[in-house]
Amino acid sequence: MSWLIENVSIVPMTESDYCISKGYIVIEGDRIKAMGEGSAPPAVYDQILDGSHHLALPGFINAHTHAAMTLFRGYADDLPLMEWLEHKIWPLEARLTGEEVYWGTMLALVEMIKSGTTCFADMYFFMDEVARAVETAGMRAVLARGMIGVGPSSDLAITESRALASRWDGAADGRIKIILGPHAPYTCPPEYMHKVIAMAQNMGVGLHIHLAETAGEVADSQRIYGMTPVAHMQSLGLLDHPVIAAHCVHLNPQDIEILAQYNVGVVHNPESNMKLASGVAPVPKMIKAGIKVALGTDGASSNNNLDMLQELRTCALLHKVNTADPTVIPAYQALQMATTNGAMALGIDKQVGQIAAGKKADLILVKTNEAHFVPHHDLIANLVYSGQAADVNTVIIDGRIIMQDRILKTIDEKLVLEQAQRAAMELVAP
Amino acid sequence: MSWLIENVSIVPMTESDYCISKGYIVIEGDRIKAMGEGSAPPAVYDQILDGSHHLALPGFINAHTHAAMTLFRGYADDLPLMEWLEHKIWPLEARLTGEEVYWGTMLALVEMIKSGTTCFADMYFFMDEVARAVETAGMRAVLARGMIGVGPSSDLAITESRALASRWDGAADGRIKIILGPHAPYTCPPEYMHKVIAMAQNMGVGLHIHLAETAGEVADSQRIYGMTPVAHMQSLGLLDHPVIAAHCVHLNPQDIEILAQYNVGVVHNPESNMKLASGVAPVPKMIKAGIKVALGTDGASSNNNLDMLQELRTCALLHKVNTADPTVIPAYQALQMATTNGAMALGIDKQVGQIAAGKKADLILVKTNEAHFVPHHDLIANLVYSGQAADVNTVIIDGRIIMQDRILKTIDEKLVLEQAQRAAMELVAP
Repeated sequence: MSWLIENVSIVPMTESDYCISKGYIVIEGDRIKAMGEGSAPPAVYDQILDGSHHLALPGFINAHTHAAMTLFRGYADDLPLMEWLEHKIWPLEARLTGEEVYWGTMLALVEMIKSGTTCFADMYFFMDEVARAVETAGMRAVLARGMIGVGPSSDLAITESRALASRWDGAADGRIKIILGPHAPYTCPPEYMHKVIAMAQNMGVGLHIHLAETAGEVADSQRIYGMTPVAHMQSLGLLDHPVIAAHCVHLNPQDIEILAQYNVGVVHNPESNMKLASGVAPVPKMIKAGIKVALGTDGASSNNNLDMLQELRTCALLHKVNTADPTVIPAYQALQMATTNGAMALGIDKQVGQIAAGKKADLILVKTNEAHFVPHHDLIANLVYSGQAADVNTVIIDGRIIMQDRILKTIDEKLVLEQAQRAAMELVAP
Repeated sequence: MSWLIENVSIVPMTESDYCISKGYIVIEGDRIKAMGEGSAPPAVYDQILDGSHHLALPGFINAHTHAAMTLFRGYADDLPLMEWLEHKIWPLEARLTGEEVYWGTMLALVEMIKSGTTCFADMYFFMDEVARAVETAGMRAVLARGMIGVGPSSDLAITESRALASRWDGAADGRIKIILGPHAPYTCPPEYMHKVIAMAQNMGVGLHIHLAETAGEVADSQRIYGMTPVAHMQSLGLLDHPVIAAHCVHLNPQDIEILAQYNVGVVHNPESNMKLASGVAPVPKMIKAGIKVALGTDGASSNNNLDMLQELRTCALLHKVNTADPTVIPAYQALQMATTNGAMALGIDKQVGQIAAGKKADLILVKTNEAHFVPHHDLIANLVYSGQAADVNTVIIDGRIIMQDRILKTIDEKLVLEQAQRAAMELVAP
């Protein structure tokens, strides 16, 4: 099937600040066949979608989250980090079942699709349920079973990670990719990390890890290993593999050099870092060092939403004030972080992250005729500094319309909201 | 006419963290007649509105903005402050006409109403046009003609301010209040400021000023007057009157003491301060000193929206990371800043800012059944950390339904968007 979106503004993310004010996109099967300014080449199309008053751009890539944690949204806020984790989050997570993870993930998928996210990197447990939800929703995802190298489940995490890959890697028409998820340097001692790295080598897959999130983590790493978490991971050989490194808040200049040298997929999570008061990652310095920093929301329990437009706006504002320089992270760069850089961090930039002929058709149409989007001096600035999740009108993933006029096509939204509410209430019931 | 909202959750903002899960609100004329938990007292109501799946709270009060600057949204971003002002904003402002200010303000009103703002404090010029827009829209506002004490228009600003007050103070059923708007200490030399203060004294009105916004302003004030801007304004007698003081970013401990002692209506504008890289106001310290800090968006050219939910969320996140304390500005306090504290700063807290019997009926109904608002562990946390402008479903001002199911009742939205777009394009045309 070949179909056309016409009369649409396009920010293809192929060239800095490039915005087509009126153009077309031709989609065939799961791919973009053609795109450009003006009218489409004459041809017979199976379907034509009028994109007037809409801006097309690549779908957002949420490069670090824990989808099912939507169940904890609003459960524990405004608390010190360790009280939050030890007394609130961990006890709940210990009670989680696969069924609950399924509904929590489905809730996350509804929220992500309705805010323009077409792909996400997830690290959690009961990951078969997460994969099942992703397949059902028509979403794209890079999934990792979180692996903690201390305690009774450390071996189980290895077995389950292997099983997950054999069952789900490449599944859902190739929309699901499985990687390994060693949780963090401080939860994966060196010998366990060696095992996980060897596994990655054998399986030919990348890894997803939390890195240098808090000052305490860095201090502990220095005390125990005489190295920063980044240098420590380099010394263990982790960085020789494709790595998604979430947070990277507390870095010294050498850490930044290492991350650049090894082409690590750094994921910035500004709102989670702000809410938990973890600190401000040195993003402008990383960008200057050549790192293609991606963007993630982290889990909904520390955000509390999965809204990438809010995340990229906060990112652009935060680093301006933090560096006392209003020219830092201009609008287009914030958008890159949420699209093309996300694709690079996840190792899927050959397929997604741009609107260009030959790429997978993962794209969104954003309404440009709401009051907060007027006047039209600069659609990119409007999108970044004033756009809202609810402006996302249509979502296309792998060439398939997943949402049109804000109606979900693959998910029974009402059922998901009811089931997620029920699961969350059961979870916190005494 | 007496009417009822039933089956509604309510955050009345009368008591910390108080949330009624199912209650009622009775409105008679322009006021709230009764409210409470459970069902309303049996009576004959002219109209009943079902508030199921909605949360009622006082409308947001945007305590510092320049509404018509919506026309400049996206026109000039990511620039150094002086380049932005001197080469972009000021040249455009010099070309503004009253007609353009009218449509820019109407655009702002559409955006504000659709994001739950029921009252705002504005400082700009062509203020008759602003008042006319406010009257038409059914909005509540505290308006000031910006007064600059240097240059040819300094006397005109005085004449126009007086005329504005005589024409519009108390107009639109009392929804419009006129005060004076000396722009800033650095644009109003002491002898001019004395004139303005004497006027305020004579007219019995308050004042709205920009104060201590940038480090440069404070350094200049120290150099010229040997005092900080706050101490300087105290010495001139400005603070003996009710004052709305926007920004207050760069303050020393004495400044904070003065602002507390004189009960100054400090307005925090976190997103504008972030975007222009002005700095982070010491809000937690001000709150500790007893200041009831209010919240504003500033103009859309430095934000770039007028969305108070985004503003209060950013406020809560920013100060957590800035103080390295995740317990700072908890959800309820952020909500207070955007409602009750705003009413205090504007000197209208006897009338608005809470849902309570006897207060003016300025309130909003927010949808609680969108994915990002589920589950319902804590509706206040959900609203603050995950709520979106588009969740605001119904807006009531002065007892009148201004928006219902996101349809504006007083404004021709399509016409406003067209006219604002046209005005903005004419303005930037060579």
